[in-house]
Amino acid sequence: MSRRSPQSPPLDPTILRSRLERARKATAGAETDALLIAPGSDLRYLLGEAGGSFERLTTLVLPADGVPALVVPKLEAPGYAHVPTDELGVELITWVDGENPYRMVADRLGRTGRVAVSDNTMALHVLAFRDALGRAEQTLAGPVVRELRMRKDAAEVDALRRAGAAIDRVHARMGEWLRPGRTEAQVGADIADAIVAEGHALADFVIVGSGPNGASPHHDVSGRVIEPGDVVVIDIGGPIPEGYNSDSTRTYAVGEPRDADVTETYAVLQRAQRAAVEAVRPGVTAQEVDAAARDLITDAGFGEFFIHRTGHGIGLDVHEEPYIVGGNTLPLEPGMAFSVEPGIYQPGRWGARIEDIVVVTADGAESLNNQPHELVVLDPA
Amino acid sequence: MSRRSPQSPPLDPTILRSRLERARKATAGAETDALLIAPGSDLRYLLGEAGGSFERLTTLVLPADGVPALVVPKLEAPGYAHVPTDELGVELITWVDGENPYRMVADRLGRTGRVAVSDNTMALHVLAFRDALGRAEQTLAGPVVRELRMRKDAAEVDALRRAGAAIDRVHARMGEWLRPGRTEAQVGADIADAIVAEGHALADFVIVGSGPNGASPHHDVSGRVIEPGDVVVIDIGGPIPEGYNSDSTRTYAVGEPRDADVTETYAVLQRAQRAAVEAVRPGVTAQEVDAAARDLITDAGFGEFFIHRTGHGIGLDVHEEPYIVGGNTLPLEPGMAFSVEPGIYQPGRWGARIEDIVVVTADGAESLNNQPHELVVLDPA
Repeated sequence: MSRRSPQSPPLDPTILRSRLERARKATAGAETDALLIAPGSDLRYLLGEAGGSFERLTTLVLPADGVPALVVPKLEAPGYAHVPTDELGVELITWVDGENPYRMVADRLGRTGRVAVSDNTMALHVLAFRDALGRAEQTLAGPVVRELRMRKDAAEVDALRRAGAAIDRVHARMGEWLRPGRTEAQVGADIADAIVAEGHALADFVIVGSGPNGASPHHDVSGRVIEPGDVVVIDIGGPIPEGYNSDSTRTYAVGEPRDADVTETYAVLQRAQRAAVEAVRPGVTAQEVDAAARDLITDAGFGEFFIHRTGHGIGLDVHEEPYIVGGNTLPLEPGMAFSVEPGIYQPGRWGARIEDIVVVTADGAESLNNQPHELVVLDPA
Repeated sequence: MSRRSPQSPPLDPTILRSRLERARKATAGAETDALLIAPGSDLRYLLGEAGGSFERLTTLVLPADGVPALVVPKLEAPGYAHVPTDELGVELITWVDGENPYRMVADRLGRTGRVAVSDNTMALHVLAFRDALGRAEQTLAGPVVRELRMRKDAAEVDALRRAGAAIDRVHARMGEWLRPGRTEAQVGADIADAIVAEGHALADFVIVGSGPNGASPHHDVSGRVIEPGDVVVIDIGGPIPEGYNSDSTRTYAVGEPRDADVTETYAVLQRAQRAAVEAVRPGVTAQEVDAAARDLITDAGFGEFFIHRTGHGIGLDVHEEPYIVGGNTLPLEPGMAFSVEPGIYQPGRWGARIEDIVVVTADGAESLNNQPHELVVLDPA
């Protein structure tokens, strides 16, 4: 439990072998001698197992030229027993307390010019590798690995589609839980149960931002009691057993909204979210999608109240490339999956956000979330 | 929910102020110009809030000489609203997407010779700081911060004591759940519920290692069905709302053990665990405590089956300094808290481990776990 990601159905070794080979080529193409992949989503993508994240070093050594090796503490090795290392041509190397695993990796790599560590590697390991690898330049593996992970294959899109349908089913049931007199935390606990009941491995995040709390985009839940007239931002998601994440936001009103400006403001937000989704197609840049939502909101006079980027990529991580943000000139390609989630936040009063996950298709976008985009007015009784 | 640690009762600002000042002095003493503290336990220790762990930079800049600053993304700032920054003399600096927060930190620090990042800082941030800080040497903040965190004050020991009592209550109820015909996962789910019900903020880890799975120290749970005669290792814990963790292992037998060697081997383990606890007192080194358990097990002929260190420090992290391991010559001091958890593992058949958290007192050790140490034989009916 707990420290490792939920067990997923084993992945076809041919898929993993192809990913490892593409990662090797991308490493060579980036003039990098090796990737050092830490436990987490990169490892799960390449080996089908996310691994644990302890202070003892676990790393997949992926040289541009040579045999890959999975280096794990001996006592954690049983957690990797289902990884088909032989079939993947990956050598399994264990180490015990007292040995220096960084030295083992450095000796194996020999003389290196540039070695990339995965973005989530802890400083504890980053600096130990720096010292063990002598003069090698340290870079991030993220830019190499994201070239692979950013474009989802058909099975990955299908997993994201099932995650999207599962979170849609939770939103469809919101009226069961979101009622006056209950706290955000109580509503959130019910939602978390439903996230699991509807097919997720766990409820990774549950934001219930009622009234003024809705104006804080990263609020989670609090002891605030829901009142009639509240506008409530519900942003929820988690991984399905295959590891792919859902993430969808809808905004609800508990009876008629208290604030007079809600209806008109919300209509602007809804148009902006639709405009951004409609802007998505191959060749359009990430920042153009951001601008599609932002320009519309700014033109309507709410620019200062849209205080975050329009979206983030999603897959094995809830936040990954591509980021839908000003300055990102990356052209979209089929298979890229990301959120489109503009928001308008009125400090101290209320906030609203609409979020769908979309996948770039050959000529546009497929939305993986399909609950109504209107402000959902729930019966306050 | 989720991405941030469970909310804890606010800490007395005088305690936090004293910790910040001690951290500042330790930084100066380590000839380091500043600590850069990432979200996590170090941040929680110093500010009373663990913060979130996203790809956007959040860092506490703690200069050896100068005003500390908490740098956070603007949209995550509300999560730090309860941190009494004014009272603590910490400047709050927010940044928005498009700005370069690493540059902001570097400009604030000016010319530096050595800057330490907390051990859990992600490579994404470590390498961005490396580039922004130019010629400064990067080191780990761990050795500085652990000098503070390793010695628990009275309130911290009290929190660990309550965590220990809570996990003891879960172990005391094991007979309710651990029965033949149930899977490890089913038993684990019940235990996880009880961990929360008995006062933890969450069930951080639940190991149910039955039969041969007990021989893998970091096994979690599986679909294996418990059988009469199984020996079962149950290693469980989690944080109480204040953030301090429990961690306790007991070994159970479901009816009389199947394997003939269990009773004698377990008696050796029990003596070894007691010997290690009895070795704990100020001035004794961490490795001497390890040796107290290991020598006894080795002399009995089971040395090769005790495949991990004897223990790890515990506090806001489940694993922290001091590590009770060969080679660690750290002399124990009052207030240090750690696990004493020797194990003997018979590959393919069964395993056993006994784990208590102990705190070093003025003249010995206080055990925070007080369930019986005998092999607990449960009624298999």
